Amino acid sequence: MKALVLDGGTVRLEERWPSPSPKHGEALVRVTLAGICNTDLELARGYMGFSGVLGHEFVGVVERAQDPELIGKRVVGEINLACGECAYCRDGLKNHCPTRTVLGILGKDGAFAEYLTLPVENLHEVPSSISDEEAVFTEPLAAAFQITRQIVITPSMKVAVLGDGKLGFLAAQALQLTGGDVMVVGHHPERLEILSRRGMRAVLESETAEWGRRFDVVVDATGSSSGLESAYRLVKPRGKIALKTTVAKREPFDLNRLVIDEVTLVGSRCGPFDAALLALARKAVDVKPLISRTMPLSEGVEAMRLAVTPMKAPKILLSMR
Amino acid sequence: MKALVLDGGTVRLEERWPSPSPKHGEALVRVTLAGICNTDLELARGYMGFSGVLGHEFVGVVERAQDPELIGKRVVGEINLACGECAYCRDGLKNHCPTRTVLGILGKDGAFAEYLTLPVENLHEVPSSISDEEAVFTEPLAAAFQITRQIVITPSMKVAVLGDGKLGFLAAQALQLTGGDVMVVGHHPERLEILSRRGMRAVLESETAEWGRRFDVVVDATGSSSGLESAYRLVKPRGKIALKTTVAKREPFDLNRLVIDEVTLVGSRCGPFDAALLALARKAVDVKPLISRTMPLSEGVEAMRLAVTPMKAPKILLSMR
Repeated sequence: MKALVLDGGTVRLEERWPSPSPKHGEALVRVTLAGICNTDLELARGYMGFSGVLGHEFVGVVERAQDPELIGKRVVGEINLACGECAYCRDGLKNHCPTRTVLGILGKDGAFAEYLTLPVENLHEVPSSISDEEAVFTEPLAAAFQITRQIVITPSMKVAVLGDGKLGFLAAQALQLTGGDVMVVGHHPERLEILSRRGMRAVLESETAEWGRRFDVVVDATGSSSGLESAYRLVKPRGKIALKTTVAKREPFDLNRLVIDEVTLVGSRCGPFDAALLALARKAVDVKPLISRTMPLSEGVEAMRLAVTPMKAPKILLSMR
Repeated sequence: MKALVLDGGTVRLEERWPSPSPKHGEALVRVTLAGICNTDLELARGYMGFSGVLGHEFVGVVERAQDPELIGKRVVGEINLACGECAYCRDGLKNHCPTRTVLGILGKDGAFAEYLTLPVENLHEVPSSISDEEAVFTEPLAAAFQITRQIVITPSMKVAVLGDGKLGFLAAQALQLTGGDVMVVGHHPERLEILSRRGMRAVLESETAEWGRRFDVVVDATGSSSGLESAYRLVKPRGKIALKTTVAKREPFDLNRLVIDEVTLVGSRCGPFDAALLALARKAVDVKPLISRTMPLSEGVEAMRLAVTPMKAPKILLSMR
């Protein structure tokens, strides 16, 4: 099979044989479509020291599994592979299992390939009303919905989402479903324009300079070293910042301010696939404007190269069809 | 009147005349007893650049007020003086009013004096079942109860309080009232012994080295530059750290870990006086073991000097009786 492999900082397209073999409890999934994520670009820059097949956002079809009912089902998959037996796993913290592997990120070959394997318990069937182009956003949309599991947002609250990349787009839409008053703050006029056309309030960060601290909840989905500082400038005392951004080197941040202003900083990572699939099935979230282009896996190296350059829409998909 | 004054880094005892004059809406309070707090020591080291009468933990008797009913009442007082008119004040965030003054900390003479003035709305009458020696702890005990307003703690949760100073003692007792399983982690065997005698579990930090991340909630009441790092070593993924410590220079802390482990950092400052007074009236909290000694205000300079030296119990009181 074809696979896009990261090895020692180099991304290359390989032809591999045989296809991966599912372990006990795993299914073999033929990947249909996969999304290139910022994390993939960070991995290529050395983050996590990962070597192997890249990719963790995908939709595919089960080709092999112990349960014959599963075969032929269209699925997406949760990316954390937990041991299932440690104190964390027994405590409902599987996504934080200390010996976990993570699809395409940590010790487990990923989705930029014609085939992948995942434990059956990680798979979610995709309702027929959701297209492949929508389903491939399930994983990042779930990460957006995670914010709503950690922070209660009510219609009277003012919410700012910082970042007009993929996660900013998705977080803004997920949070708008809570009824809160959501504003997106970004740097790319053409992307903010897409959000505005969807009836969302979207402004350039430069326009917020004089706003002061007026938001109950601010999401740092900037992926930037200065994102937390920007969030702090906008959050009210006793407000909450959802921190989605991991960066190799963050600008220094004075934590005394958290105490004095009683601000809460909520670290937020992977989220609920069921909520994301429901939102996609109900057409409550529109992911299609995020797609910049779809390229065949055979052009995967070029796709990775393109993904680091500025684009009107933030997402490149890889097709294995 | 006598007053303990901080001026350009020097603490001195002054004789002042006349006593402070209450503004419109303020009462004149004759101070009975006041507590020396870590913050007072930090102020003397230059924190906040404060000059004036020190002290913000006190109990006293109203001598003058517009409402004759108030005169003669024994009171404690909230320390933030808000404008009452800005957007924050109207929004219920008086403790965060950007133009506030703070008793003995910011632009307002404090409680290490025979008299102070405070807005009547800041005063709380002390029930007769509470002694002066107990009432003087209302302000820091309220700060301890603030944690329970910000973080829901249930009996099934494991809670660690780091720090065996005044705030650690008070936070441990306040959190134990939630029914949670509370452990105090400190550095002073003789102080931990006091907590143990009260039936609380208390251990030296060195004993926690191999514990791993097992607590749902960890309170950093260390006042130490390494307190947050210690808290992180003990908090579970998806757990919460209540950050009470402000320090001039904190050890570097990697905020990416918050995202990966989905840990929440809750900045926590002043709290509810009503809850603190209720707990004291019901004898649900015992503050007396905290008192190291009581010295007359005339020995205030010596008392400040003693307060920086290691003591068996963490608290020195100043008496104006």
